Amino acid sequence: MNIKENIKTLVIKKPLKLDCGKTINNFPLAYETYGSLNENKDNAILVFHALTGDQFVTGINPVTRKDGWWSYAVGPNKSIDTNKYFVICANVIGGCMGSFGPSHKNPDTNKIYGTDFPVITINDMVNAQVNLLDHFEIKKLFSVVGGSMGGMQVLQFISNYPNKASTVVPIACTSSHSAQNIAFNELGRQAIASDHNWSDGKYLSNNTLPDKGLSVARMAAHITYLSKKGLQEKFGRKLQERDALKFGFDADFQIESYLRYQGSVFVDRFDANSYLYITRAMDYFDLVKQFDGNLSNAFKKTKAKFFVISFTSDWLYPTQENKEIVIALNAIGADVGFVEIKSDKGHDSFLLDVPDFLKTLKNFLDKSYSER
Amino acid sequence: MNIKENIKTLVIKKPLKLDCGKTINNFPLAYETYGSLNENKDNAILVFHALTGDQFVTGINPVTRKDGWWSYAVGPNKSIDTNKYFVICANVIGGCMGSFGPSHKNPDTNKIYGTDFPVITINDMVNAQVNLLDHFEIKKLFSVVGGSMGGMQVLQFISNYPNKASTVVPIACTSSHSAQNIAFNELGRQAIASDHNWSDGKYLSNNTLPDKGLSVARMAAHITYLSKKGLQEKFGRKLQERDALKFGFDADFQIESYLRYQGSVFVDRFDANSYLYITRAMDYFDLVKQFDGNLSNAFKKTKAKFFVISFTSDWLYPTQENKEIVIALNAIGADVGFVEIKSDKGHDSFLLDVPDFLKTLKNFLDKSYSER
Repeated sequence: MNIKENIKTLVIKKPLKLDCGKTINNFPLAYETYGSLNENKDNAILVFHALTGDQFVTGINPVTRKDGWWSYAVGPNKSIDTNKYFVICANVIGGCMGSFGPSHKNPDTNKIYGTDFPVITINDMVNAQVNLLDHFEIKKLFSVVGGSMGGMQVLQFISNYPNKASTVVPIACTSSHSAQNIAFNELGRQAIASDHNWSDGKYLSNNTLPDKGLSVARMAAHITYLSKKGLQEKFGRKLQERDALKFGFDADFQIESYLRYQGSVFVDRFDANSYLYITRAMDYFDLVKQFDGNLSNAFKKTKAKFFVISFTSDWLYPTQENKEIVIALNAIGADVGFVEIKSDKGHDSFLLDVPDFLKTLKNFLDKSYSER
Repeated sequence: MNIKENIKTLVIKKPLKLDCGKTINNFPLAYETYGSLNENKDNAILVFHALTGDQFVTGINPVTRKDGWWSYAVGPNKSIDTNKYFVICANVIGGCMGSFGPSHKNPDTNKIYGTDFPVITINDMVNAQVNLLDHFEIKKLFSVVGGSMGGMQVLQFISNYPNKASTVVPIACTSSHSAQNIAFNELGRQAIASDHNWSDGKYLSNNTLPDKGLSVARMAAHITYLSKKGLQEKFGRKLQERDALKFGFDADFQIESYLRYQGSVFVDRFDANSYLYITRAMDYFDLVKQFDGNLSNAFKKTKAKFFVISFTSDWLYPTQENKEIVIALNAIGADVGFVEIKSDKGHDSFLLDVPDFLKTLKNFLDKSYSER
């Protein structure tokens, strides 16, 4: 696939001091837009993607040739209505869809960074993306919206830039990665690092790919995106193209075949080192600690209107963790709405065709937009 | 470590027809006993071990030099009181602590079996172990007890041999592996198979070991043994021997260090191919299907007294799945007790110092024994 010709890139000239202490500048930030910016420049929504997402939110992703990751929610007349709003989404730094990341060359050495790329944080990601506002001459976004790691970026963004968004929609996320979240991410990282082809991150220079390890990492993550009940209803103990157990180690069960498939298609579109860097950023995310143990302080300076959405069967970022954000906002009298959507589809609910969710998101945005 | 000199082995001469269709005979079954068989030979308890357990239930395991896996529950005056009961435990076939398994040599070819070993089932495991009763001239066991995969063996045993146990104690288990259970096991198998050193299971002949893959498999499984809340309380976001994040990929968090440690010590005591075979046996377990969709029929022929135990925070085999066993027993008017123990320690609760559980198990056994 030729990535470059399909990717719009903004080169960020302004130096960005990263949380790790290093400063980067003249780095690329790949982005995509949908819809049109109005004359007042007050209809822009910055969408943040999750761990394995990218800037191609909706329509056909020109690189993978598949539907954009949020095609259910974003588009003409959809929840995030591109007839009405100007949607911007950037590939996070550390990513592998054009933004500055570990598969880029280090200009100082002319070698691919690999694990010499600086460790980045959610804070670094949003500090890179805020440059898009200057680029489009947008003073204030109508909204910042995102699910999962996208939700973490939403929270970090409004904390860093309290006057740069009118509405704030964190979905299926958390203000601080839990021990179990870190555990699953560490499992994925160890799976990659265990792959003989990973070669301490130097695989691109060696012309090898740690596909097996990355595939195992994806399988592990994928299990956490679905609910136990959802898996049981969808797959249960159904066999894969056979009438009886084969007494071997091929995929007897549909769930095995499904996971293997999820792993195999993932490695075609994602970079193993980016997986390490982005999971690390998620694990480092702790907005509570950033504000000395008081999450409310993260939101003290903003007058934005919040709307927090969780899903009943999400065990990765369960309702309780989403509610902690609501509690912190209520504690300072912020304008906050909250809804828990009933769904058996687990954490992935925000990406899927869950009508209650899609309607709820649309209603919040459209009502807030007409009242602005 | 010299395994052989510490291991008691019974050679099963009688042919055993496996579920896969193959027949095995003259195969070793490694076992251990604790306490003494009384004159009436009616005080024996057959304990079944879980996925990574072995016959060394309590005291110091002579091979690993660590405490036996059920030292909290089994011993003098403990829940399973070895002053009173004669405890027998065998290493499952397919295992790696002396019983017939994939690291043994195929007598026909004089080569190590590897993945040429026949795929075995929970049914095969108990059909091998029932030979221990003849060996000890025990007509009827006082009890069959086991947690997790041990509980599956308990259910299968009493279904196959309805008159061979007076009491039946399945703990933290299920009558049928769920899609999520299969998914996590498949993840572990793929982690092993992805290890360059696994070599299609021929690693012992090649003098290599797929330690990295096996370690990742163990990490994945270990996460499922603990509850989200338990992990959060024990580890949370505590750092490992450092005051601040290091912005690298070493183990910054205690949970990362803990998981890496769990993986690394596991590979010293367990065989990767055995891990494949035993997880496969668990995934194949479906007592409901064995009895044409009616679990009650599995227990119709027995007069044994059942006691089912589950744990509140066990998300691998949640209370609901344990209750389904109780419901099936109640439907045929069987003698069944059930208790859900409150614990934050997840699935591993049955192995740990959970006083309510240990007391409950002791009370059931001792009361049933005095009433027999």
